[in-house]
Amino acid sequence: MAGRFVTFEGGEGAGKTTQIRRLAARLEVEGIAVVTTREPGGTPRAETIRDFILSGQARALGVEAEAALFAAARADHVATVIRPALAAGRWVLCDRFADSTRAYQGADGADPDFLGALEAVAVGATRPDLTVVLDLPVEDGLARIAGRGGGPDRFEAETIERHRRRRAIFLEIAAREPQRCVVLDGRGSPEAVADAVWRTVRERLIEGAR
Amino acid sequence: MAGRFVTFEGGEGAGKTTQIRRLAARLEVEGIAVVTTREPGGTPRAETIRDFILSGQARALGVEAEAALFAAARADHVATVIRPALAAGRWVLCDRFADSTRAYQGADGADPDFLGALEAVAVGATRPDLTVVLDLPVEDGLARIAGRGGGPDRFEAETIERHRRRRAIFLEIAAREPQRCVVLDGRGSPEAVADAVWRTVRERLIEGAR
Ligand SMILES: Nc1ncnc2c1ncn2[C@@H]1O[C@H](COP(=O)(O)OP(=O)(O)OP(=O)(O)O)[C@@H](O)[C@H]1O
Ligand SMILES: Nc1ncnc2c1ncn2[C@@H]1O[C@H](COP(=O)(O)OP(=O)(O)OP(=O)(O)O)[C@@H](O)[C@H]1O
Ligand SMILES: [Mg+2]
Ligand SMILES: [Mg+2]
Repeated sequence: MAGRFVTFEGGEGAGKTTQIRRLAARLEVEGIAVVTTREPGGTPRAETIRDFILSGQARALGVEAEAALFAAARADHVATVIRPALAAGRWVLCDRFADSTRAYQGADGADPDFLGALEAVAVGATRPDLTVVLDLPVEDGLARIAGRGGGPDRFEAETIERHRRRRAIFLEIAAREPQRCVVLDGRGSPEAVADAVWRTVRERLIEGAR
Repeated sequence: MAGRFVTFEGGEGAGKTTQIRRLAARLEVEGIAVVTTREPGGTPRAETIRDFILSGQARALGVEAEAALFAAARADHVATVIRPALAAGRWVLCDRFADSTRAYQGADGADPDFLGALEAVAVGATRPDLTVVLDLPVEDGLARIAGRGGGPDRFEAETIERHRRRRAIFLEIAAREPQRCVVLDGRGSPEAVADAVWRTVRERLIEGAR
């Protein structure tokens, strides 16, 4: 049986990386083989593009160019990591995916039709079976990551306004695609959020599949 | 009436820029309003991407990223220059277009399906009415431009082998899409080639349209 493809989306500090680790551990307890990966990145080539974008250098080329670079990185990631793992029956948990491009480059003014066409290039038929949107007020997420070393990258350094627009886009996507997406309140304790994630995964991907 | 969209393709030094100038002059004599433009480039944003690619910096990101950047530049060029000019009834003569991505990034190993999907993103319904492929032996074209100042850019500096592969791709495209493409021998004098271009344009786009 082909594996399941689960993506985690949401703003900065929403808890995506934390929850992916916890879900992977729970799935392994269930005897399910899991691959965890992240975007942008996930392959050597995609990590090179990631570094280039997060350094801020892509900015000068325009938001469409930035979106196109994400698409190129994603195509490589899908073709060389995600699709083979799913075909081998593994579950793939991905930290950000196509919805982040819609939210981030969309909030930066890229044309939604252009973004949609690029998404088709990058993702093809490899659409997520489940997308968990971790939602919380922008300020809460930023406060969580404020203590992190290394200074803000190009996306963290944006204005609050823009973070709010991204949050709104994530919520819109989830409202428009309820079959694929679930919005979970990211404000609970890590344990409480993990329980909600696990309940959703069990209902939608494990019990539903029996 | 909507204008006509004519693209010139072919290897380095094939005579594209020379022939576009001559065709524009002839069309103007006929009272036809003409816009000449070039790829990569044609808009401020696209020229920024052009400079980035031709400087060789995009290379490190991989051939798919390079192709994606060309697509972003092309989408901007099509939306802000080419489509509006055609809608206003002007003819657009474009120095390289989507076939150059197929030939150059294709010869560099990018997956043709990926390139095809990107082409759809960039070009949409704005396909050329006529594509003139100026064909000549790779060495002849390189000899013509050898005298140019400024040193070779990233594409000119490639090996002869790769130039040959590009030439083969241009000829394959023309063979597969004879309705859109015509291959003209680029070895004649500028006047002789211009006469052949003009004959083709008259037959295919002026007399055919009456
Ligand atoms: N539910 C939670 N309650 C409180 N703190 C949390 C919670 N989940 C994660 N954290 C902490 O908040 C910070 C951000 O969490 P995490 O890195 O998982 O978020 P993220 O969504 O992956 O962020 P980024 O967008 O920056 O990758 C970390 O320091 C993490 O330990
Ligand atoms: N038919 C021709 N015979 C001889 N020389 C020519 C001919 N056409 C153009 N040239 C000369 O060859 C050089 C290259 O021509 P041109 O710049 O038009 O080619 P191009 O296809 O636009 O090249 P590039 O790919 O570098 O843009 C120029 O110096 C030009 O004057
Ligand atoms: Mg994270
Ligand atoms: Mg030229």
